[in-house]
Amino acid sequence: MSYQDCIQACLECMEQCNRCFDDCLKEDNVNMMAKCIRLNRECADICAFAVQAMQTNSQFTNQICELCAEICEACAEECEKHSNHAQHCQDCAQACYRCAKLCREMAAA
Amino acid sequence: MSYQDCIQACLECMEQCNRCFDDCLKEDNVNMMAKCIRLNRECADICAFAVQAMQTNSQFTNQICELCAEICEACAEECEKHSNHAQHCQDCAQACYRCAKLCREMAAA
Amino acid sequence: MSYQDCIQACLECMEQCNRCFDDCLKEDNVNMMAKCIRLNRECADICAFAVQAMQTNSQFTNQICELCAEICEACAEECEKHSNHAQHCQDCAQACYRCAKLCREMAAA
Amino acid sequence: MSYQDCIQACLECMEQCNRCFDDCLKEDNVNMMAKCIRLNRECADICAFAVQAMQTNSQFTNQICELCAEICEACAEECEKHSNHAQHCQDCAQACYRCAKLCREMAAA
Repeated sequence: MSYQDCIQACLECMEQCNRCFDDCLKEDNVNMMAKCIRLNRECADICAFAVQAMQTNSQFTNQICELCAEICEACAEECEKHSNHAQHCQDCAQACYRCAKLCREMAAA
Repeated sequence: MSYQDCIQACLECMEQCNRCFDDCLKEDNVNMMAKCIRLNRECADICAFAVQAMQTNSQFTNQICELCAEICEACAEECEKHSNHAQHCQDCAQACYRCAKLCREMAAA
Repeated sequence: MSYQDCIQACLECMEQCNRCFDDCLKEDNVNMMAKCIRLNRECADICAFAVQAMQTNSQFTNQICELCAEICEACAEECEKHSNHAQHCQDCAQACYRCAKLCREMAAA
Repeated sequence: MSYQDCIQACLECMEQCNRCFDDCLKEDNVNMMAKCIRLNRECADICAFAVQAMQTNSQFTNQICELCAEICEACAEECEKHSNHAQHCQDCAQACYRCAKLCREMAAA
């Protein structure tokens, strides 16, 4: 498993989280998306942090990717609850699960 | 006007924006706070960026503080609309206006 | 000019800056790279900030891209001084100039 | 142990790391400080991340503080190696150790 695959998954996840954050705030019922909005933000931020760690050869890459995987999973689970009616949540859940998987592999490498 | 005063105002503004973000997402009517939530996030992030610039003696301190002031003002104006019923917005508006003022002075220094 | 092109240029610039930061710190003569190390860091950070702004439809996208262009140009100019002997600086300068160009266009849009 | 104490320790650590980063890059022998420069950057970034998590009531506060403690300790140990001749490293080591301690307590809370 290469750094480049994990970086790419983090960047894709960051993008989907940022877009989901934006779209959630435009929903008819924002109350229902409050937890999603929180997790989108945290997930986008930790993905950016993980990318920076991998691109600079941080000695903490494993631990950061471990934390990233955990936050991605929580975000994916929350997004999945809204996947039936919100396409952005469905897209985000998918990107988060994939990123979590690659980050877990990176953390174990 | 000292770096330390501007740093302190940015840190106080960041704290109020982060708390306002959290509190807005717990409001009865989150829809009404959607713009505030967005601006809280951006304002907290640019304040953190400005603090880092000042603490590392960045050559772009003036331009970063200029941008920080602009975002702080937008956040303050939005928060002010909710100041009557939400104490967190009132506190946040106050911290944002103060930070904007000190960042303008720093940018002009 | 599309958001997606500018986001892509910022991500590429962020990657090259992070790699250049890492490589500069491994050079035989780190003293010579001190300014480059500083600018790599700031440039990677503002690129990440600009990406987040574009992906969340920030109302400050223009101003953030304007600032990003300015920092990219400074980083590119510093990297160019080391381009003869350091491939990472040459790659970074190229990515910074391209990002600066697209950010200027975005800021003027 | 209160959130506010841990936030304050993280902010103090972030400041010392940012100042140490700046000062290390001005040293006569930057090569000797390369690892310190890296760790200063990562430590300042994770401290900012931990502050944001605590101020927004993140559900990942414990895990983020755990990671923050680990990075703070690595930074403190590196800074300590230079404490005899560089006051900024001595100050930074002290702030890092204190922050690590409070973050460990927060993570275990």
